[in-house]
Amino acid sequence: MHTLRRLAQIVRAELVGNPDAVVNRANSFYQAVEGDVTFAETEWYLERINSSAATAIIVSSAVSGSDRNLLVASNPKLAFARAIEALHEVHYQSIGVSGDVVVGPGTVLGKELSIHPRVTIGRDAVIGNRVTLHPGVVIGDRCRIGDDTVIYANVSIYADCDVGSNVVVHAGTVIGADGFGFVPDEAGHQVRLRQLGRVRIEDDCDIGANCTIDRGGFEDTILRRGVKLDNLIQVGHSTEIGDDTVVAALTGFSGGTHVGQRCIIAGQAGTNQHITIGDGAVISGRTAVTKKVGAGAAIAGMGQNRGSWRRSQVLFSRLPELAERISRLEKAIREAGLMSEKAKLSNPKRKS
Amino acid sequence: MHTLRRLAQIVRAELVGNPDAVVNRANSFYQAVEGDVTFAETEWYLERINSSAATAIIVSSAVSGSDRNLLVASNPKLAFARAIEALHEVHYQSIGVSGDVVVGPGTVLGKELSIHPRVTIGRDAVIGNRVTLHPGVVIGDRCRIGDDTVIYANVSIYADCDVGSNVVVHAGTVIGADGFGFVPDEAGHQVRLRQLGRVRIEDDCDIGANCTIDRGGFEDTILRRGVKLDNLIQVGHSTEIGDDTVVAALTGFSGGTHVGQRCIIAGQAGTNQHITIGDGAVISGRTAVTKKVGAGAAIAGMGQNRGSWRRSQVLFSRLPELAERISRLEKAIREAGLMSEKAKLSNPKRKS
Amino acid sequence: MHTLRRLAQIVRAELVGNPDAVVNRANSFYQAVEGDVTFAETEWYLERINSSAATAIIVSSAVSGSDRNLLVASNPKLAFARAIEALHEVHYQSIGVSGDVVVGPGTVLGKELSIHPRVTIGRDAVIGNRVTLHPGVVIGDRCRIGDDTVIYANVSIYADCDVGSNVVVHAGTVIGADGFGFVPDEAGHQVRLRQLGRVRIEDDCDIGANCTIDRGGFEDTILRRGVKLDNLIQVGHSTEIGDDTVVAALTGFSGGTHVGQRCIIAGQAGTNQHITIGDGAVISGRTAVTKKVGAGAAIAGMGQNRGSWRRSQVLFSRLPELAERISRLEKAIREAGLMSEKAKLSNPKRKS
Repeated sequence: MHTLRRLAQIVRAELVGNPDAVVNRANSFYQAVEGDVTFAETEWYLERINSSAATAIIVSSAVSGSDRNLLVASNPKLAFARAIEALHEVHYQSIGVSGDVVVGPGTVLGKELSIHPRVTIGRDAVIGNRVTLHPGVVIGDRCRIGDDTVIYANVSIYADCDVGSNVVVHAGTVIGADGFGFVPDEAGHQVRLRQLGRVRIEDDCDIGANCTIDRGGFEDTILRRGVKLDNLIQVGHSTEIGDDTVVAALTGFSGGTHVGQRCIIAGQAGTNQHITIGDGAVISGRTAVTKKVGAGAAIAGMGQNRGSWRRSQVLFSRLPELAERISRLEKAIREAGLMSEKAKLSNPKRKS
Repeated sequence: MHTLRRLAQIVRAELVGNPDAVVNRANSFYQAVEGDVTFAETEWYLERINSSAATAIIVSSAVSGSDRNLLVASNPKLAFARAIEALHEVHYQSIGVSGDVVVGPGTVLGKELSIHPRVTIGRDAVIGNRVTLHPGVVIGDRCRIGDDTVIYANVSIYADCDVGSNVVVHAGTVIGADGFGFVPDEAGHQVRLRQLGRVRIEDDCDIGANCTIDRGGFEDTILRRGVKLDNLIQVGHSTEIGDDTVVAALTGFSGGTHVGQRCIIAGQAGTNQHITIGDGAVISGRTAVTKKVGAGAAIAGMGQNRGSWRRSQVLFSRLPELAERISRLEKAIREAGLMSEKAKLSNPKRKS
Repeated sequence: MHTLRRLAQIVRAELVGNPDAVVNRANSFYQAVEGDVTFAETEWYLERINSSAATAIIVSSAVSGSDRNLLVASNPKLAFARAIEALHEVHYQSIGVSGDVVVGPGTVLGKELSIHPRVTIGRDAVIGNRVTLHPGVVIGDRCRIGDDTVIYANVSIYADCDVGSNVVVHAGTVIGADGFGFVPDEAGHQVRLRQLGRVRIEDDCDIGANCTIDRGGFEDTILRRGVKLDNLIQVGHSTEIGDDTVVAALTGFSGGTHVGQRCIIAGQAGTNQHITIGDGAVISGRTAVTKKVGAGAAIAGMGQNRGSWRRSQVLFSRLPELAERISRLEKAIREAGLMSEKAKLSNPKRKS
């Protein structure tokens, strides 16, 4: 619970309204009632601001004609994230180490842990302080898990992987399985390229549910500080993803991809092997990244510049019209005697 | 085992043939032998109906010249589903609660349960009657699981989620992980928007293996009664999917998607955030749903009307021919002196 | 550790250099140092061969002007795979059967096993010799697991499935969940087609992490000998994949797909139901396989021939230019009085 005076300081906003009003919950614009702080994300919400029952509303600029308590922030979504955190943060409380945990010899456990039942940890591993391991977590030999990291149920981490501090790994994710490297032999049978690298996940990463992050072939697979992965994401062997890059669900990175810092990669995208993506690049949903992407570039489709791709995509939907216009031109030209029938293609209905 | 007289009643078909013949198994057209009932799905099978060794064949209309036992049904696939069920239904038998189960304080267990070993249930949860929990299932604090629900191995359900009655959740699925909400701060670091909503799965839903259904930001993520999800499907935070909608594998729903009732969504489709899809819409495989879809609409490609998309797609494969026809027109027009060379684009080989 | 004399024999290469030099590790070109063998994969590496600190380098042909130890192999990638194996093979050592394992009645366990804690095996199953089961593995009733097979953490295998010898199944994969078969009844509710088939995985298969391989409807789902699946792959009910076929991540096979031998299927591809793909076909990343693919065919896009698709794709990116050229032609023709304004389409901006 905070007064608006205090909340405005926390979220770095300017208060227009009653500094002594009190909020105890963040809520969506639709659901917010008395006692809630909410957020007007778009113009559409701003126009309806007087219909909101929320005690305070975070906005990007003062709204004339409103008698509501407004928190005016230069980045209102960020201010709202901070408001949610201020009102709903759950303080860590150690639950200790369950008696129903298997820990291998040589493994060192930190302090103030929360290790649930049915956790299995291999030998010679190092588990930091205040780590939370949910039921069914399996951690391989010689892994290192940093302080304050939370690993949810049924996550599997293979041997020799390194997970930093303040990392969250959601349920069902697999870290350190073999990279996909095979080569056919003389008889056509696939021979494995044994994978000798590891996985290193740096501090402050968030990894969604049921992701797969393969160990490296020789070079480690690396998620740099603050990488955020959504669910069902494939990270191939020896791929490296730069600091603070954000990746949406069902995207796949082939082996040896190098992704820069602060990139935004939307859902169901994919990369060819050994592609480099520059810092700050923005990859649209379902993009096939088939060649190098420059820093700051915006890419869509089959690796096209996004603006160009959009123009092409509009014309794709108008292809029947374009084809019809070509036919009319041909008819006019032929009727004027300027092009013989022979000049038409032999079988226009089916080329390619 | 049923006589055809009885089976015809069960599957709501008209029998043409011997009412006293007996079947004890359903089988595919290819594999069916004496004692089996099978199903002629297409014209191709109907033409081969006399070559089948099955005792009875479910068809859409009587086949002239056939001496087989036919079950004529207006919806033969539905009739076949009922025949399979009638012949192969397995009646529920409680195996009780394994001694190797961890149950938190305050949790209430129903009657006639089948709880396998290695199951972990948090505190203050409610488990209904005749629930089956396979090994490795993890159920969080304060969850509710309805009667007759089956949860397969290694499923992870986070705290505060609600699963209805007669639901099936296949192995490895994750329910209730945090939605993917981040916003960059002043330094470019991603700040989490803490997710305060839950997941609610209504009665009669079937959820495939290794799916991920995220908890809501504020509004709950909801699967309405009878939703059927295939495998490896991502359901984003605060998404709602309407009654009896069917979704094929590897599809991803972004946060805040609203899907209507009785929609059919094929594989590897995806939606932009906050999209609405109307009742009864049909979304083709790999469609990117980029804008609102009306009730009953059929959509493909980048959210195009399906018929229009198909015409465009045919012309896409004929683009080399269209380009060649444009070149021939240009040549004819220039040779007739009707268009100068200058009127050609400066660099036709590489625009875009 | 091997002399180059010996290593050349093992990898079937011709040595150009010192036969008594010794290597003890395989490494990437970038990381290789004294004592390592590495691999010059492309021309780019061959040009830099003298800058490598590796003791030996596997190449496709002798490099003039190099004083390095070269292992010249007709298939250098295959030779490198064998070199890695020769230097890094880990010999199997049984760890026995953990006391913390649940095994159902009637199940037969082989010899020299490595069964980790928290494994659950149903009744009447058969586990071969030298099988490794990692923590959290769940194996259903009446399953058979062949000799020397390794199943990683938290894999779930449903009842009645058959896994061959020398198979690897990576963590989180689900084998034998119900195929996705539903049909709407008179009220629009989806009725399940109960799935009566099984899954059969033949010898020498490798299956990645978090895959889903559904059991058959009637015919079994089958992976033939030596199939290699990457991560997050969906294999639908009654699909069959032929010997030595390789499939990259996030690909989905609909029910009843028949894939031939030695096919190469890249990432995020998908197939329509009941499609046949011939032996040796090459399916590009993200291909939608919508119709039968002949043996040896190369396919991309919406099931097009790959060469044709590439030409179309280049022209897709040039659609704005093509549209502009059509407009210029129309202008020239109309200015010459050869086509009336009426011949233009009523609304060229928005047809489709």
